[in-house]
Amino acid sequence: MTPKLDTPLLDQIAYPADLRDLDDRVLPQLARELRDEMIDAVSVTGGHLGAGLGVVELTIAIHKVFNTPEDRLIFDVGHQCYPHKILTGRRDRIRTLRQEHGLSGFTKRAESEYDPFGAAHSSTSISAGLGMAVAAELGQTDRKVLAVIGDGAMSAGMAFEALNNAGALDARLIVILNDNDMSIAPPTGAMSAYLARLASGRTYMGMREIGKKLTAYLGKNIDRAITRAVEHARGYVTGGTMFEEMGFYHIGPIDGHSFDHLLPVLRNVRDNAKGPVLIHVVTQKGKGYAPAEAAADKYHAVNKFDVIDGTQAKAKPNAPSYTAVFAEALVEEARHDEKIVGITAAMPSGTGLDKLQALYPERTFDVGIAEQHAVTFAAGLAAEGYKPFCALYSTFLQRGYDQVVHDVAIQGLPVRFPIDRAGFVGADGPTHAGSFDTGFLASLPGFVVMAAADEAELKHMVRTAAAYDAGPISFRYPRGEGVGVQMPERGEILEIGKGRIIKEGTKVALLSFGTRLAECLVAAEDLDAAGLSTTVADARFAKPLDVEMIRQLARHHAVLITVEEGAVGGFGSQVLHMLANEGLLDTGLKVRSLALPDLWMDQAKPEVMYEKAGLDAKGIVATVFAALSCDTLPQDGRLR
Amino acid sequence: MTPKLDTPLLDQIAYPADLRDLDDRVLPQLARELRDEMIDAVSVTGGHLGAGLGVVELTIAIHKVFNTPEDRLIFDVGHQCYPHKILTGRRDRIRTLRQEHGLSGFTKRAESEYDPFGAAHSSTSISAGLGMAVAAELGQTDRKVLAVIGDGAMSAGMAFEALNNAGALDARLIVILNDNDMSIAPPTGAMSAYLARLASGRTYMGMREIGKKLTAYLGKNIDRAITRAVEHARGYVTGGTMFEEMGFYHIGPIDGHSFDHLLPVLRNVRDNAKGPVLIHVVTQKGKGYAPAEAAADKYHAVNKFDVIDGTQAKAKPNAPSYTAVFAEALVEEARHDEKIVGITAAMPSGTGLDKLQALYPERTFDVGIAEQHAVTFAAGLAAEGYKPFCALYSTFLQRGYDQVVHDVAIQGLPVRFPIDRAGFVGADGPTHAGSFDTGFLASLPGFVVMAAADEAELKHMVRTAAAYDAGPISFRYPRGEGVGVQMPERGEILEIGKGRIIKEGTKVALLSFGTRLAECLVAAEDLDAAGLSTTVADARFAKPLDVEMIRQLARHHAVLITVEEGAVGGFGSQVLHMLANEGLLDTGLKVRSLALPDLWMDQAKPEVMYEKAGLDAKGIVATVFAALSCDTLPQDGRLR
Repeated sequence: MTPKLDTPLLDQIAYPADLRDLDDRVLPQLARELRDEMIDAVSVTGGHLGAGLGVVELTIAIHKVFNTPEDRLIFDVGHQCYPHKILTGRRDRIRTLRQEHGLSGFTKRAESEYDPFGAAHSSTSISAGLGMAVAAELGQTDRKVLAVIGDGAMSAGMAFEALNNAGALDARLIVILNDNDMSIAPPTGAMSAYLARLASGRTYMGMREIGKKLTAYLGKNIDRAITRAVEHARGYVTGGTMFEEMGFYHIGPIDGHSFDHLLPVLRNVRDNAKGPVLIHVVTQKGKGYAPAEAAADKYHAVNKFDVIDGTQAKAKPNAPSYTAVFAEALVEEARHDEKIVGITAAMPSGTGLDKLQALYPERTFDVGIAEQHAVTFAAGLAAEGYKPFCALYSTFLQRGYDQVVHDVAIQGLPVRFPIDRAGFVGADGPTHAGSFDTGFLASLPGFVVMAAADEAELKHMVRTAAAYDAGPISFRYPRGEGVGVQMPERGEILEIGKGRIIKEGTKVALLSFGTRLAECLVAAEDLDAAGLSTTVADARFAKPLDVEMIRQLARHHAVLITVEEGAVGGFGSQVLHMLANEGLLDTGLKVRSLALPDLWMDQAKPEVMYEKAGLDAKGIVATVFAALSCDTLPQDGRLR
Repeated sequence: MTPKLDTPLLDQIAYPADLRDLDDRVLPQLARELRDEMIDAVSVTGGHLGAGLGVVELTIAIHKVFNTPEDRLIFDVGHQCYPHKILTGRRDRIRTLRQEHGLSGFTKRAESEYDPFGAAHSSTSISAGLGMAVAAELGQTDRKVLAVIGDGAMSAGMAFEALNNAGALDARLIVILNDNDMSIAPPTGAMSAYLARLASGRTYMGMREIGKKLTAYLGKNIDRAITRAVEHARGYVTGGTMFEEMGFYHIGPIDGHSFDHLLPVLRNVRDNAKGPVLIHVVTQKGKGYAPAEAAADKYHAVNKFDVIDGTQAKAKPNAPSYTAVFAEALVEEARHDEKIVGITAAMPSGTGLDKLQALYPERTFDVGIAEQHAVTFAAGLAAEGYKPFCALYSTFLQRGYDQVVHDVAIQGLPVRFPIDRAGFVGADGPTHAGSFDTGFLASLPGFVVMAAADEAELKHMVRTAAAYDAGPISFRYPRGEGVGVQMPERGEILEIGKGRIIKEGTKVALLSFGTRLAECLVAAEDLDAAGLSTTVADARFAKPLDVEMIRQLARHHAVLITVEEGAVGGFGSQVLHMLANEGLLDTGLKVRSLALPDLWMDQAKPEVMYEKAGLDAKGIVATVFAALSCDTLPQDGRLR
């Protein structure tokens, strides 16, 4: 039982306007209350804790100084936005975070006018903010635009592109670089190291220094163009920071937990800034909650937990997670083949590549939040005869799509793509769903595209990918735990383009691609029981298709249903295309294609999402019945 | 008539090994001959001239100093690679550049062992090179890896990601930044401005200075880690360059047309470098050919031309190009609606946005080679009520795919995507073909996806997109000129999700998406003549489909053929999916789906490519005949 929270100040704040009436001196008290409220809420819901704890003071300070929502505040990777949500009219729903019908775990335009731009993938905020800043100038308003971006997110190419453009456009954009305690997380790139040097080499700027710098930079009726030219020349000679080279005024580093630092800087920038400004704020992830401060990952993402001691609830798993199976299988293959290398884009534990790293650190590469680079870096390794496994979540692979096409597929290079979090992801919602990978990969000539039906299949596919050297190959698998099948000692090498018949029947064929196979088997039982003898096949490959198997299914059944956890344009489309062009649809086969529905589905429990999508056994049976125009069991089972 | 070239030195060079036997002092002469040869070749074939002329000395110097192909040389955006091709065993075929069965206009692995990595999209070379450098270290070889990258390409996020990773990995990678006369092309980003400052602020480093710097940096048995730490500290205090901050040793700027500068620097780096090095080389695009030097675009890409005076041959157009029609229509709409803004990623003239820029400079944004940023920047503008037209080539939109999904589509923001170069692009080959956009956009919930059947339709679609404010909308159109139809004064607003019947028939329905409509009409004439009464429909929309029209086509014809210039997974897949799930395939409709074939098609004339793809009238007729299992005309036309 959590004791009732005592939050007298926070209780007065329904919206940021209320905050603006408070005296600066009570803000530390408000910060404590906000922190307590947030810890308590996340202890109930689970979610991203560490990032939010780190920006409590910053969030309060911004809303205190700026006129949100008229001034635009964009949080990069919205998982630092919980304190922001509490302060912006959503405190009453904060314990519904990431639940069905509840608040999103990220910022979301549809949820509040205080969320002017949704962000769940990293490094988008400067681009979006620049668009808004330019809009403010075109509309001749005095609106301010702020983008709060973490140091990790700053290392992505997209952020650099935006800085590069913002510096040249000279737009009124305020970027707040939230540098959260670099020294703990191992830096993965030169930019991280650079920021650490800035933060450690200088102590925090003193107030006098800040004042001097602000005056010099943002100053008093001095023609801005001249000031800038002078500053640039000076920067060139004496060495400005990288951000100054990019055309930004750079203030900081300042202490992101001190209102004495935050408020005057933000006020000065608000009142005086005329071009792009970058405020370098140092914060501590997990700040103010002892168990988080002590943990290596700062409670980045947590399950429900006990507020007193920080103990996280653990769901008892029935089977190993797909990620764990992948990791173990990859380590096994790496043991047999020293050419195997692993690549992750800032997700070593999320992808399971930390397991490879522990054993083979020299063959494991964390390239940072940089999916474009990850893919082409892998292509370079493949060109030299190495066997790179470029392990990304489906939704993040989208960031490297052009590189998959241009650097990997066109050149036919054997890069292996383990695709984690394929399909629904539950609480993280539509921004993190893995919906499109099968479509955008299977359309590429020469690509081998697989999906694992269960965790044993995943093991086979890791080995198959390791053995396959003729071109690019991918295999997708979902978030969460496997189905609990018997696991082989080591995976087998699957024949490329060969599916498997799991169960033979005569009337209905269910052709599954991926882990919906289990539901197909349940559906088949129901269908059999209803007198509709059902075949179940596991396609294994969306490309190349097992043309011979699919031909047989089409010729010897009255109904053929494709089932996949992906958008239209993927596996079902490949099958329909082949069936159509081979003339196998000319004879009256009742073919149906079950795919993800054509909408962005909000977060919910996976079972709920499958039901909505019609991708559970019930939905599959209903599709068969509808195809046969029968609501009930036909007595003799004859339908043709 | 071109006079016979006098190239005694070049004639001795079959491969780079021959070059290594030459005395340094004759290299300027070799450069002159190589330049003459290249100008003469491109005068015959057309192609990219300016970039290659700028790197003649650099290319010679690299092959002279490094042991290619054992040392790996990667050219970023291969269009600077013509001199390299001439020196690496391909001189005899240099006049087949970009022709069918000829040399590719870019580097290509399949073409030569001297092309270790193909590059046609920009900014990939550092990532690929880093992969190769890491491979060299893992394999414990002493192989050197060089990436030659232009200043424009350096501004893309992907290059930054690679620098960031290379600096941290401390790999033996040599990046040559080819800074080609920035002062001419208008700089589009802060990075460009920064490089210009570096190049103009310092004069070229003198030989003594280069020597000193090289010794200090790459030096004599000094423990590298210590040197680095010292250098970094020094850099921090006195201001290292941005590249030094990123962990690179930075040499330069040096004169890229002087062998006296190039050779010693390259030799020193070859012999001494132990970590990542960046050599900043200043060159002049179009160098050594007066007409190119005098032209604003430095003859970036040219038609065949007269070597003496540089006059380019001009194909007489029969109709305006799609790009020109788009540009004109956008300007027209922008005149009516001040909320319309245009965004290009370093392609103002390629996309036609220069026309908008000329009239509305404050509403036109060239963000540099930065498609990721371009898309989210547009999303930011759309969030504020502006109407951004984010004009990209199909193949480059791939770079912003995740941003299209995450920042535009999930948020339902009304960003307009004019997609140029959709479909085959002829001489530029598979790296530039626009094959996948329909598939990867139509799978996104809430997206409106259009294709123009001709240039008048394009005009309608520009107006339709300008008027549509309910969510994201795209329209694709091909490279080249229109079909010469009557043009309306201004476009009409099309009803969303409504196609049109062009010609009514009774047996066969051809359902076209995009400019293959003209071939469908030719095919229909042939089919009619063969007794197969043919309907031709223009779908206009791949999403939302004109379900009612397609139902009618399916119900009232024996054969239905979808036709599109895109990969499987796009328009035809959307149609098949709908037909299947509505049960319209249950009755024996002979449906076929014509799409791009499942292979990477090399460059050729578009007509040749269409024929190979079966997407010309002949191919369409053949598909209908095959569907009906008739080689010849059925006498009574009855087929069902």
